[in-house]
Amino acid sequence: MQASSKESAPSIGRRGFILILSSPSGAGKTTLTRAVAADPKWGLDLSISVTTRQRRPSEIDGKHYTFIDREAFDALRSADNLLEWAEVHGNFYGTPRRPVEKVLGAGRDMIFDIDYQGTRQVRSKLAEDVVTVFILPPSLAELRHRLERRAEDSPDTIEKRLANARMEIQRWSEYDYVIVNDDLDDAFRSLEGILIAERLKRERRVGLTAFVEGLLAEPD
Amino acid sequence: MQASSKESAPSIGRRGFILILSSPSGAGKTTLTRAVAADPKWGLDLSISVTTRQRRPSEIDGKHYTFIDREAFDALRSADNLLEWAEVHGNFYGTPRRPVEKVLGAGRDMIFDIDYQGTRQVRSKLAEDVVTVFILPPSLAELRHRLERRAEDSPDTIEKRLANARMEIQRWSEYDYVIVNDDLDDAFRSLEGILIAERLKRERRVGLTAFVEGLLAEPD
Repeated sequence: MQASSKESAPSIGRRGFILILSSPSGAGKTTLTRAVAADPKWGLDLSISVTTRQRRPSEIDGKHYTFIDREAFDALRSADNLLEWAEVHGNFYGTPRRPVEKVLGAGRDMIFDIDYQGTRQVRSKLAEDVVTVFILPPSLAELRHRLERRAEDSPDTIEKRLANARMEIQRWSEYDYVIVNDDLDDAFRSLEGILIAERLKRERRVGLTAFVEGLLAEPD
Repeated sequence: MQASSKESAPSIGRRGFILILSSPSGAGKTTLTRAVAADPKWGLDLSISVTTRQRRPSEIDGKHYTFIDREAFDALRSADNLLEWAEVHGNFYGTPRRPVEKVLGAGRDMIFDIDYQGTRQVRSKLAEDVVTVFILPPSLAELRHRLERRAEDSPDTIEKRLANARMEIQRWSEYDYVIVNDDLDDAFRSLEGILIAERLKRERRVGLTAFVEGLLAEPD
């Protein structure tokens, strides 16, 4: 309301959290993740996965992925230093735990775009610091339209993605929030609302105790 | 994204909730409650309290309060038909349970502007259907400025309100969310974020099971 009141409130420390978005392919998870991660207003950090697969010419080590060999991957995994990992077509992918814990400890939040299996793994390791959102398509017919419209996949691949979508959709009930992505702008606003609310949760705002003590210590 | 997808998504039923705002006097609870209740975008219902006090000439029975006698009040209370009640200066005030349950059952939300004692009572009766928000002032000095600026109270009353504020502030730790009301617009946006997020919570969206069954029943 006034410049003076703005200056008088110290910033209040809190624990960060990981916002996890999951959805079947085509429901908008990647588009939404990129949109919210690209908006500096939200100050979200992205994690850099490790992978054992070969680097592609367009990829930068330490930016797109950290490229490591199988031995290094197994060492991370057996030391419980991966928040989640998966094998895809013979290659291993994982999210290193330390950099994530560092970001959360500093009171910043991250966004992950992973499937329900990855979500389960992360939740088992960082329970209260995880906020999970499932994105549903408004209908399977619309999901098919979107996959066809983006024209990335062959008809066969589209059928496989739709068959997978039927399985993945059934995991909605394991998530904290569910967004039906009927309209991308609405879905984005929903995601913003979740970020706002989760940042205001009392349990996460570890600095409030000191803030209130400061209030009560003011002279009359 | 398209008119067609908009039409294809049915509205998904959910349980409503009560958004409770508490704060010490002057921290902005009433201003915020009125602002969000007056915005038709949020479709929030207000409850009408019952009271045993005399109707003032400006008040309309059934609008500002439902005016009842002490016997009727005691009957409501002993039948557990009040979500919360309090005695103030020898008069009794309470929130009838039935109209609230009707609104929530219809999937609509309500907003209550009550103190921590009322909050405890409502929470004990409607646990999961209650979302609680505590509004803190940025400082006690700012709280004093606001009370002086609104020029409603005598210096003595302001001192009493500030002494009370010191007690009430200590209840912040019983609430789900805490907003430091440093700037009214920011606080309003925080409240909107909480409403958006709480409406997306999976547990509340009892219609999602049927919605997903509908999705999965679509022909290939």
